[in-house]
Amino acid sequence: MAKRVIVIGSGAAGMTAASMARETNAEAEISVITEDSHIAYSPCAIPFVIDGTIADFESILMHTPEFYQKERAITVRTKTRVVSVDLQGKKVKTSVGDEVAFDSLVICPGGKVFVPPISGTDLKGVYPVHSLGDGQAIQKALKGAEKVVVAGAGVIGLEMAVAIKNLGKEVVVVEMLPQVVPRLLDPDMAQIVQQHIESMGIHVLLNTPIGSINGKEKVESVTAGGKEFACQMVIMATGVRPNLDLTNQMGLDVGPLGGVRVSPTMQPYSRGRLVKNVFLAGDVVSCESAATHGPTMNQLGSAAVRQGRVAGINAAGGRATYSRVASPWVSLLGDLQVAGTGISHSLGDYYGLSLVEGKSKGSTRARYYPGGKPITVKILAEAETHRIVGAQIVGGEDVNGRINWITAAVLKQVTAEEFVTSFEHAYCPPTSPVKDVVVLAAEDLVKKLA
Amino acid sequence: MAKRVIVIGSGAAGMTAASMARETNAEAEISVITEDSHIAYSPCAIPFVIDGTIADFESILMHTPEFYQKERAITVRTKTRVVSVDLQGKKVKTSVGDEVAFDSLVICPGGKVFVPPISGTDLKGVYPVHSLGDGQAIQKALKGAEKVVVAGAGVIGLEMAVAIKNLGKEVVVVEMLPQVVPRLLDPDMAQIVQQHIESMGIHVLLNTPIGSINGKEKVESVTAGGKEFACQMVIMATGVRPNLDLTNQMGLDVGPLGGVRVSPTMQPYSRGRLVKNVFLAGDVVSCESAATHGPTMNQLGSAAVRQGRVAGINAAGGRATYSRVASPWVSLLGDLQVAGTGISHSLGDYYGLSLVEGKSKGSTRARYYPGGKPITVKILAEAETHRIVGAQIVGGEDVNGRINWITAAVLKQVTAEEFVTSFEHAYCPPTSPVKDVVVLAAEDLVKKLA
Repeated sequence: MAKRVIVIGSGAAGMTAASMARETNAEAEISVITEDSHIAYSPCAIPFVIDGTIADFESILMHTPEFYQKERAITVRTKTRVVSVDLQGKKVKTSVGDEVAFDSLVICPGGKVFVPPISGTDLKGVYPVHSLGDGQAIQKALKGAEKVVVAGAGVIGLEMAVAIKNLGKEVVVVEMLPQVVPRLLDPDMAQIVQQHIESMGIHVLLNTPIGSINGKEKVESVTAGGKEFACQMVIMATGVRPNLDLTNQMGLDVGPLGGVRVSPTMQPYSRGRLVKNVFLAGDVVSCESAATHGPTMNQLGSAAVRQGRVAGINAAGGRATYSRVASPWVSLLGDLQVAGTGISHSLGDYYGLSLVEGKSKGSTRARYYPGGKPITVKILAEAETHRIVGAQIVGGEDVNGRINWITAAVLKQVTAEEFVTSFEHAYCPPTSPVKDVVVLAAEDLVKKLA
Repeated sequence: MAKRVIVIGSGAAGMTAASMARETNAEAEISVITEDSHIAYSPCAIPFVIDGTIADFESILMHTPEFYQKERAITVRTKTRVVSVDLQGKKVKTSVGDEVAFDSLVICPGGKVFVPPISGTDLKGVYPVHSLGDGQAIQKALKGAEKVVVAGAGVIGLEMAVAIKNLGKEVVVVEMLPQVVPRLLDPDMAQIVQQHIESMGIHVLLNTPIGSINGKEKVESVTAGGKEFACQMVIMATGVRPNLDLTNQMGLDVGPLGGVRVSPTMQPYSRGRLVKNVFLAGDVVSCESAATHGPTMNQLGSAAVRQGRVAGINAAGGRATYSRVASPWVSLLGDLQVAGTGISHSLGDYYGLSLVEGKSKGSTRARYYPGGKPITVKILAEAETHRIVGAQIVGGEDVNGRINWITAAVLKQVTAEEFVTSFEHAYCPPTSPVKDVVVLAAEDLVKKLA
C-alpha cells in the first residue's frame, strides 16, 4: 500500500526518519519540508570547523536534496516552513501557501536556542550556535574580532571557547552556575575540565550571570558580575529548548520537562489520548530515563538518529519501538575527552534519588605501557537498589568506548556488584589496564555501597 | 575469626585472590606458594617488551613479594611447588618438604604451553611464550638470531611475530589451520589481519603443520609443508592447556573442554559433589558461556582477575559469585587493533548454534573529521532467538571500547533489534560517527535476521 509520508525538519531526526521510511516502504511518497537551507549535517561539528580542524562547512554536509531525490526518491523542500497541520483533513499548510496531504506525519522541529532576557541580545555580533548558518556567520565575524565572550559553560559553550581560543582570540566564558558543564558533571569532575580549559588560556567566570550586552549597533562589551568585559562578539551557548511552535498549535501534550511526551512508538498524546498517524523525534520530545524511570530530555545527535529511525519506520507502516534512555554524551576539549551517561549527583537530587559514588584515577593503558593518558572515572549507583544510574569520565583517550560500556549497565539496570563481577572488558597493555579504571571505580562503588 | 588461606600460584588469578582475601578478612593468615620466581606481572606484555616498546621486564612487575608482605601482610613463597594436597587433613605438602595447614585453599596453577608431538622441540633455540622467564630467554636469544619461525598464528603468535619483525629479523609464521587467529576470528576478518601482518613483511604460511624442528644441538631449520625454513629460533605459540597436575591428583572433575568445572562461587566438584574450602581461578577452570550457555575456556588476564577476586573473597569467608562470560579479547598488531567477544562462526558451528552475521566498514570518527582510521565490525546473532552472541572488530583505534560495548549485549542476552533501538552510544565527531560503525553492523544484522 502506497503511503504519503511528510517529514517536517531536516536535522538528524528528520533525515533519518525519511530514509528509514523509504527502507520500510519502497512505494511510499516521502517528502521532507524544512525551514533550513542546509540539510543532513551534524551541528556537533561546528566548533571543529570554526577552528579549522575540519576544512570547511561543506565537508560536514552529508547529502544534498538532489541526492535524496535521486538515490532515495525523497523530495526535500528547503526554506519552507509548515505553518499549520490539519489533523482531521490530513494536510499541512506551508509558508509558501500550498497545502500538502499526508497519510502519516513525522514532526522533527528540533530546538531553539534559549536567549536570556537581558538587554543587547539583538545587537550585531551576538550569535547563537545552533545551525550551520549560525556557524558560517560566526566564522565570518571572527575575522574581525579579537575578544569574544561565550555565554554558558555547557559542552557547546566550552567547545566553542576552545575553538575560538585555538584561533588566537581572547576568550571569556561566563557561567551563571557555580561550575562548568552544570547538571551533567559533578563539581569534582567539572573542576578537572575547568583547570584544563584555563590551562589553554581561556578565562572562566563562574557564579556570574550576564547582566547586559552593551554597544550601539555592534557589541562593544558585556557586563557580568559587576564587571565590564570589552569584546566584539558574544556567543550565546545558553541552552536549547524544544521548538513547540507547531506542536502547541496542534494541542500535543507537553511533559513536565518541557518536551512533547511520546509513546514508545514515538507518537504524541493530546489530552492523554494517543494521536494517530503522527510521530515525533529529536530535540522536541521528552523520553523516559533508564536511570530515573521518569521523563528526561535527550537532546543529542545520536539520540535524534535512533528516534528518527523509530518514527520513520512506524510512519511508513512498519513496527519499531523506542525505549528508556541513558543519554550518553562525549566532548573533546583540546586534548581532553569528557563524557557522561545517565544522571549526575545534581540530577539525582533534582529527581529525588539518593546516589552513592565510586571513583578512580588511573591510566588509559597498562601502567607500564608508554603513551597512556590520565583518566578519571566516576560511577554512580542508586543507594537503595545498587543499580548503576550514571557515570562521568574525563581523560586523554578512549573515553567514548568506556562511557558506552557503562551506558549498557545503566540501560540494563545492572547493579554495581554485577558490574564488577561480570561486566567483562577486553585487555591488552596498549589499550587497557588489566583492571581497567572503570572496574576500579566500580569496585570503589561496591565498597561505598556496603 | 582468623582463617588460614593458602593460594597456589602467583599469576593474575592468584595474586588477585590473595589481595581480595586480605580485603575481605583483615585477620586471616594468607600465603601464596608459587613455582615461579617472578610474581604479579602480565604475560600479555611480553611481546611489547621484546620489541622495546616497554623498556624492560622489570617494568612489568607490579609488586614484589616484599610489597605483599609489608603492605598486605601476605606471605609469598617463590620457587616452591605444592606437590600434594591433603583435603581431609587440610594441609599441603611443598617441594621443599614441609607441610602447611589451611582452612581454605585457592588453586591457580594456570596453563601449560601445548607443544605438538614433533621431533626437535627439545633443541636449543625452541622457546615457549608463557612466563616472564620465557620472555627473558627469548630476548636474550634474539640477539644471536636473524631468522625466526613462529609456530601458531593465534593472537600471541602474531604479537610475537610483529615484535620480532620490529627488531629487524626475518619472521615466518607457520599455522596448521587455513587462517590466522583461528576459532576467534571468522575467515573474512582474519583476512584483513593477515594482509596487515604481511604488509609488515612477515611471511605467513597457512594450512601448514610443522613437520619437524631440525638441528644438532641448536635449531637450524624447520620443516613445514614439505619445505625447509632455515632459522636460529622457533617460538612455540601453539596454545595453552590447563595445568591439571595438582587438580587431577586431587580428583577434581574436568569439564568437556579440558578445564576444571567450577560452581559460581569458583568451587570445584569431585564426582559431581561440590568440594568444600577449595576455590579455583584462572586458566585452569572452565566457565559457563553467555553466548552458548555451555562450557567455555576463558584464558584471559582480565578474566583471571575477575575469577581471582571471587575465589579470594569466598576463601576468606566473604560472599561473591562469578557468572556467565563473553570472554572479550583485544590485541595490537603494529598499528592495527583486533578484538573479539562471544563466539565466531566456527565456534557457533562447533557448539551447534546457527548464527547470522551483520557487518559494516567505516571510520572510527565522523566521516569528515581528520585522522579517522578504517574499522570493520561484524556482529553475530543466534538465528532463532536474535540474541547477539559475538562480535569481531578490526580497526585503527578505539576498538577496545567498542568490543566492551557489544560484550555487554552478549552478557545481557540483548537481541539485535534491541541493540539497534536502545543500546545507545555517545557521539562527537572526533571520537565517533553519529551512527557508529557498530550500530551500522547491528542494523545490517537486523536486516539479515528479518
